[in-house]
Amino acid sequence: MRRLTIWSIPIDREICAGDNLGDLLGATGELADGDVVCVSQKAVSKAEGRVIQSDPEHLDEAFEAALAAETRRVLRVRGTTRIVETHHGFVCANAGIDRSNAPAHALVLLPEDPDRSARRIRDRLRFAWNLHVGVIVTDTFGRAWREGVTDVAIGVAGVRAILDLRGTADWTGATLRVTEVCIADEIAAAANLVATKAAGTPFSVVRGIDPAWLAESSARAIVRDSARDLFR
Amino acid sequence: MRRLTIWSIPIDREICAGDNLGDLLGATGELADGDVVCVSQKAVSKAEGRVIQSDPEHLDEAFEAALAAETRRVLRVRGTTRIVETHHGFVCANAGIDRSNAPAHALVLLPEDPDRSARRIRDRLRFAWNLHVGVIVTDTFGRAWREGVTDVAIGVAGVRAILDLRGTADWTGATLRVTEVCIADEIAAAANLVATKAAGTPFSVVRGIDPAWLAESSARAIVRDSARDLFR
Repeated sequence: MRRLTIWSIPIDREICAGDNLGDLLGATGELADGDVVCVSQKAVSKAEGRVIQSDPEHLDEAFEAALAAETRRVLRVRGTTRIVETHHGFVCANAGIDRSNAPAHALVLLPEDPDRSARRIRDRLRFAWNLHVGVIVTDTFGRAWREGVTDVAIGVAGVRAILDLRGTADWTGATLRVTEVCIADEIAAAANLVATKAAGTPFSVVRGIDPAWLAESSARAIVRDSARDLFR
Repeated sequence: MRRLTIWSIPIDREICAGDNLGDLLGATGELADGDVVCVSQKAVSKAEGRVIQSDPEHLDEAFEAALAAETRRVLRVRGTTRIVETHHGFVCANAGIDRSNAPAHALVLLPEDPDRSARRIRDRLRFAWNLHVGVIVTDTFGRAWREGVTDVAIGVAGVRAILDLRGTADWTGATLRVTEVCIADEIAAAANLVATKAAGTPFSVVRGIDPAWLAESSARAIVRDSARDLFR
């Protein structure tokens, strides 16, 4: 019987532009082959310099400009919250731009290409540390119809985003028809259970994943094409 | 540093009407105080007799009648899929009525009151087995905007549905503003990572949850009021 173990790796300083997250992770000595590492979007964005500094009196203005630049289209507006589709195709509040938890008077944008961010971390761990792991870049999104936010996958490398069970048999022998499971989102959600907002925990490790799930993939597989989407 | 362990408990026969899931779980000897047990909706519904038998030639008819009875309103229709709001307030495909994985020529409906179902299992484990655990009834739902299904919480007892972090400080000292995390959904998603569709695994155990999260709650806290919902 498969057994998962999940824990977070604290880092005792803020992530800065130019930090190599693969090296930071490798140096912790906590990873082993077959693990999946979840890395928070904020850590990735800071390491990649996706931060806009602003003087306090121009922060709102800077936010509006950044939001417009990051948005492909606006789905809904309520109060100060805009539910938008980003250029990546993610539907989320305020294009994922973060003002809390950020350096003072700064905006943290989503990575330009979170799949590429995940791939870089995975490749660094592979070639510099000889560690073969899957990497998921996670962010915290709201949902339609349900209260509360959950962590989801916005970038994926070396672990399947979606597990296609169509055509396989369930345990009664009946054929499963519509079961494509977004395991990347489920792993991201699981990892958030050990993250501590009050401490700096940009990294979580999920150990015990089915080795068959560790394969090339992309978070683009999770983005539902708007032509197929009933709520966009 | 908190460490979660997650595994599933297989049951070597089908769950039948009248089965006491609390006793089935207690008898496995796998639970300890402070655990959260995830129980699949299908196991709960079968134990509660929420199954409609039909002869094969009338199954479609029976399905349409059941769907109409379980539905409060229809949100979208595409092909044979109806996205509806159930009487509980859940938004899901076909009111959560299942035809796969079910006994031949039968429909499995959602529990009438999944919170009550969770409470019964928790109370049985408490009073007959002296085990103090949280219980989550899980089901597999699709989402807006994202491909793939994930497991979510439809019934909750003895574990918080939503963790309200508003007003607490993040690790930079900034006050978190909108962070209500749906940990019940995150736990349900995590539990699904160890469920094996090809085997009968109605139960998963999550060990290591923050004891402060084990408190009275209800999955009704997850149902967004339609007046507050931007996508309904």
